Amino acid sequence: MSKFFSDKYAALTPYVPGEQPKDAQYIKLNTNESPFAPPLSVVQAATAEAGKLQLYSDPECTPLIEHAAKTWQVKKTQVIATNGSDEVLNFAFMAFCDKNHPIVFPDITYGFYSVFAQLNGIPYETIPSKEDFSVDYRQYVGIGKNIVIANPNAPTGLALSRAQIEEIVRSNPDNVVIVDEAYVDFGGESCVPLIDKYDNLLVTQTFSKSRSLAGGRLGVGFGCESLIADLNTLRFSTNPYNVNRMTMAAGCAALCEEEYFREKCADIMRTRAYTTRALKELGFEVLDSKTNFVFAQTDKITGEELYKQLKARGVLVRHFKGGRIENFNRITIGTKEQMDVFLQKVKEILEENEV
Amino acid sequence: MSKFFSDKYAALTPYVPGEQPKDAQYIKLNTNESPFAPPLSVVQAATAEAGKLQLYSDPECTPLIEHAAKTWQVKKTQVIATNGSDEVLNFAFMAFCDKNHPIVFPDITYGFYSVFAQLNGIPYETIPSKEDFSVDYRQYVGIGKNIVIANPNAPTGLALSRAQIEEIVRSNPDNVVIVDEAYVDFGGESCVPLIDKYDNLLVTQTFSKSRSLAGGRLGVGFGCESLIADLNTLRFSTNPYNVNRMTMAAGCAALCEEEYFREKCADIMRTRAYTTRALKELGFEVLDSKTNFVFAQTDKITGEELYKQLKARGVLVRHFKGGRIENFNRITIGTKEQMDVFLQKVKEILEENEV
Repeated sequence: MSKFFSDKYAALTPYVPGEQPKDAQYIKLNTNESPFAPPLSVVQAATAEAGKLQLYSDPECTPLIEHAAKTWQVKKTQVIATNGSDEVLNFAFMAFCDKNHPIVFPDITYGFYSVFAQLNGIPYETIPSKEDFSVDYRQYVGIGKNIVIANPNAPTGLALSRAQIEEIVRSNPDNVVIVDEAYVDFGGESCVPLIDKYDNLLVTQTFSKSRSLAGGRLGVGFGCESLIADLNTLRFSTNPYNVNRMTMAAGCAALCEEEYFREKCADIMRTRAYTTRALKELGFEVLDSKTNFVFAQTDKITGEELYKQLKARGVLVRHFKGGRIENFNRITIGTKEQMDVFLQKVKEILEENEV
Repeated sequence: MSKFFSDKYAALTPYVPGEQPKDAQYIKLNTNESPFAPPLSVVQAATAEAGKLQLYSDPECTPLIEHAAKTWQVKKTQVIATNGSDEVLNFAFMAFCDKNHPIVFPDITYGFYSVFAQLNGIPYETIPSKEDFSVDYRQYVGIGKNIVIANPNAPTGLALSRAQIEEIVRSNPDNVVIVDEAYVDFGGESCVPLIDKYDNLLVTQTFSKSRSLAGGRLGVGFGCESLIADLNTLRFSTNPYNVNRMTMAAGCAALCEEEYFREKCADIMRTRAYTTRALKELGFEVLDSKTNFVFAQTDKITGEELYKQLKARGVLVRHFKGGRIENFNRITIGTKEQMDVFLQKVKEILEENEV
């Protein structure tokens, strides 16, 4: 830290993304990426822009906003596009929370929420999840504070129903409820259809998971016109050209590939069921995932040890140190072939461990 | 504005990027883009990544940082890569300025500085430029406040020497001096070679102008290790994957094309001299530009009227309303052919105006 760094950030602990080791080729099941490349039309759309990079991207993101409005059946003024959904989440923390408007979220959830809160000097509280790691939605009903809920949640994979989220939104009319739907396409119920009904609901989604564009950086936010206008005020006050030309084109093309999208999500969900079954047969407890990962533990080996031994065998999964989830690993669902390798390695590790 | 928008931003006026009208094809001389497409190797490098977009980009930006360190002859720990240089500028305002650490900058300069200050609740002061629109560097010597200086400056195009900037940096050891070198490759003197000598110097550059990547969104910042570490703390607390895969590859490839880069910069400078001469012959005052644009006025027609009439004839230039520069237009240097069309239109407008 330099002597010039503002005191505001003295205690700030940045988010730690999943490791990207360069020492070897791993089967990467640690950052919830899609195992499927984007479809050819998406590659071609991005490629077609590469020769025009001397020109700024459209700061209004016009074509992308139009495609998104059509796909999610909302008005164009109800969508914002950002450089990944982390950006729209940060804008939302900035816009709607401050010293007098704290935010609450589950204790076990996406690790970035506490970072966004710290970064922006926002008081925050975490609400303990239940014994089974699910979010007790009743604890958020009428709480009178801003709320952010990942639904389905990470790293647990567990989901609330739309009706439960609606109850939270309805009962907190003077506060903004941010629903982070990064993983919704793998079996969750989206709250986008509720944005016309509630002026305090912001829903965020990402192209990183179900649409195979993690490396493109594209997120979207949905809310009533005035919420989206506030977020755009911040966007135009930080980085109006936040979405580059290639990603903008890739995003538009991705939204024209609904069949590919549905097929690949269905594939992930099938492989998730397969992986869950196999892990359970190996003696794991596996939470009921509605995402493209599973969260699993066993009493045969600690979470950390399993993570380390898998890494030594060329398979990366994500282990979170400390607290109630110390014994778990979060395992991204890859292709069936990748999961077979993963399962084989787990089997080997458990067998060696028994000896 | 929604009822939920934080009071902090009640008075925030976002930056207004140059217009991007979609009603017709214009000769775009309004956003200081390069008229030259990136070289083929850059297009190919970006394209090669398009099929791997399902994977996150490297949050450490390893290859890009390595290429940048080599190009600018600095250590890898002295560089940060961002989603355009607006992002690194915003991080710098956040990191080094706060209520007790105000910032000063010239009254006539890049319009985003006051927005970044407002956004982050930073008190700021502007120092009037001289009668001839140049920055009086002596006014910044020993001022004891953080400073941001675009060098060369926009929209004037005028530059300070490295020695003058060094005097500002040297005389303000307890404050950070941010030197925004977005346009340095068109005739300015870079201060990057000074970062080893001064721990309070941050230099930012962009790939948007001289490297033909405006639509890719790539900026870089240079400073001593601890300043860069501070900026990375903020980067990892907002958007660790801020540079997408395609742009990262394009940036690396661009840095391997030094000959193309130098040729195109030389071309722009030649065309700038040509345009300046021609405008002067038409009776314009043209400031001495070290950038890829010229700032010009004439007493034959108001700046606003010239802007409007050029737009009506299919040529976009940038006009800034109000204040001392009301009568000027900022005209990006395009290809010689584009400038000939521009000059022809200006001639027609002046002739019609005389009648």
